[in-house]
Amino acid sequence: MQEKRATNRIEIVSPDNKAVKLAASLAEKKHRDALGMYLVEGPNLVREALQQGIPIRFIFTGAEALSRRAEIEEILQLAENSGSAVCVLSERVFGKVSDTQTAQGIAAVCLKKAWREEDLFFPGSCVLVCDRIQDPGNLGTLLRTAESCGFSGALLLKGCADPYGPKAVRSSAGCVFRFPVLLCESAGEALDMLARQRKRVWTAHMEGAPCWEAPLGKDIALVVGNEGNGADDAFLKGADRVSIPMEGQAESLNAAVACGILMYESLRQRAAGGNK
Amino acid sequence: MQEKRATNRIEIVSPDNKAVKLAASLAEKKHRDALGMYLVEGPNLVREALQQGIPIRFIFTGAEALSRRAEIEEILQLAENSGSAVCVLSERVFGKVSDTQTAQGIAAVCLKKAWREEDLFFPGSCVLVCDRIQDPGNLGTLLRTAESCGFSGALLLKGCADPYGPKAVRSSAGCVFRFPVLLCESAGEALDMLARQRKRVWTAHMEGAPCWEAPLGKDIALVVGNEGNGADDAFLKGADRVSIPMEGQAESLNAAVACGILMYESLRQRAAGGNK
Repeated sequence: MQEKRATNRIEIVSPDNKAVKLAASLAEKKHRDALGMYLVEGPNLVREALQQGIPIRFIFTGAEALSRRAEIEEILQLAENSGSAVCVLSERVFGKVSDTQTAQGIAAVCLKKAWREEDLFFPGSCVLVCDRIQDPGNLGTLLRTAESCGFSGALLLKGCADPYGPKAVRSSAGCVFRFPVLLCESAGEALDMLARQRKRVWTAHMEGAPCWEAPLGKDIALVVGNEGNGADDAFLKGADRVSIPMEGQAESLNAAVACGILMYESLRQRAAGGNK
Repeated sequence: MQEKRATNRIEIVSPDNKAVKLAASLAEKKHRDALGMYLVEGPNLVREALQQGIPIRFIFTGAEALSRRAEIEEILQLAENSGSAVCVLSERVFGKVSDTQTAQGIAAVCLKKAWREEDLFFPGSCVLVCDRIQDPGNLGTLLRTAESCGFSGALLLKGCADPYGPKAVRSSAGCVFRFPVLLCESAGEALDMLARQRKRVWTAHMEGAPCWEAPLGKDIALVVGNEGNGADDAFLKGADRVSIPMEGQAESLNAAVACGILMYESLRQRAAGGNK
């Protein structure tokens, strides 16, 4: 492979290298917030970031992974063609950057996108409201499902996991690159914004209207509450209630599954033409 | 609390006690298979097992948890009223029985139920087919969702996680107590059984019929494939294909969410009256 290597790759063997330290610091939310950057790991996600044109600060690979896996060389060439800086790290140093147990051989430092209210809100658009979803895997899955069901974006209330954390990025399957998210300080702030944007707010609740009878097809905000405690009282008071009719003796569904079903129902109604 | 304690509680301080060793052995599938028993942990699940009338061999509690938590005493009395043997263990010995990191103070050794083909198959019934679902959390979530969507049971193909393992029991939220499951050696065996039982087999596939156009309301078997590799070729050849129409750029949904949506669509069609 030697002859294929472009000359502008940076070889790093020192764990004190500044770029390495920056990447390693992104394991913590406070550094991701301060720098406006996050780490993306593994060939699939790094390739997707490049293909989506996400601004990338650095790409890191491990020397050993590079020599063993043709796929990684291919992604590096894609990166170099798009002008990204590529750093080849000794395995020991690469281990300082990478979060995952199973070494994936490649990682990228990406710049967060700043989303605006108008990215989420337009006539007909449906948005997801995540109220203190604490598990990053759940959050990523919710964002991924929301995108697939044609939702335009998500409001994340204070207390949610960071969508740019490594586990959320993985379970979002790359959706974090392109799916608009806005942070909100409180349920009150979110409700004000949703009223201003003329979205009808629905909260999942056992005693709500059966979802197939509720008009969910357009201009809605669907609130999904904390895994243990459900949605904030402000949403229960200030929103309509919708339920998934259930058979059998189970008392509830897994939160990500339940919300997935409600977002699908919104998609189905939209496809069926009209609101409901 | 002392005066409330029934005299027939067995106090155990030796980790070599036979009942303790039996319970600890249930952490391994081979022992669960050989003994036909499994362990259920935590107040909520143990209470539910008692309320459902699940045959229980032993109930274990830790002496410290018992003295601190009124809820546990209450469950023990429920157990004693139903004739279950209650063992009070020293904390050290209780730690040998319990699987979870966060001590939940109570555990029960339950007997597996032997389900028969006729428990799952009857006119109109819909069944889930799990093809090598390896993650026990996914498997438990799928069973829980299937029950809620009015499915009558599940076929679990060889290669699936054990539904009686601790993580599957937890994520099934007690559904394992009452939701019929049958084990199958192969896709071929499952397809033969489904043909004999006159169930139309559907496999999720990107190029399948949109789920809201497919008749899923009754007499179907829905195949959910392995998390990484999808369903066995035999199912792709021998079954109809159904898809969830997706918007946005995501390539796929989380397996448990996707299957939840398809089972919900079956429920919705049934509720709408007739098949589709």
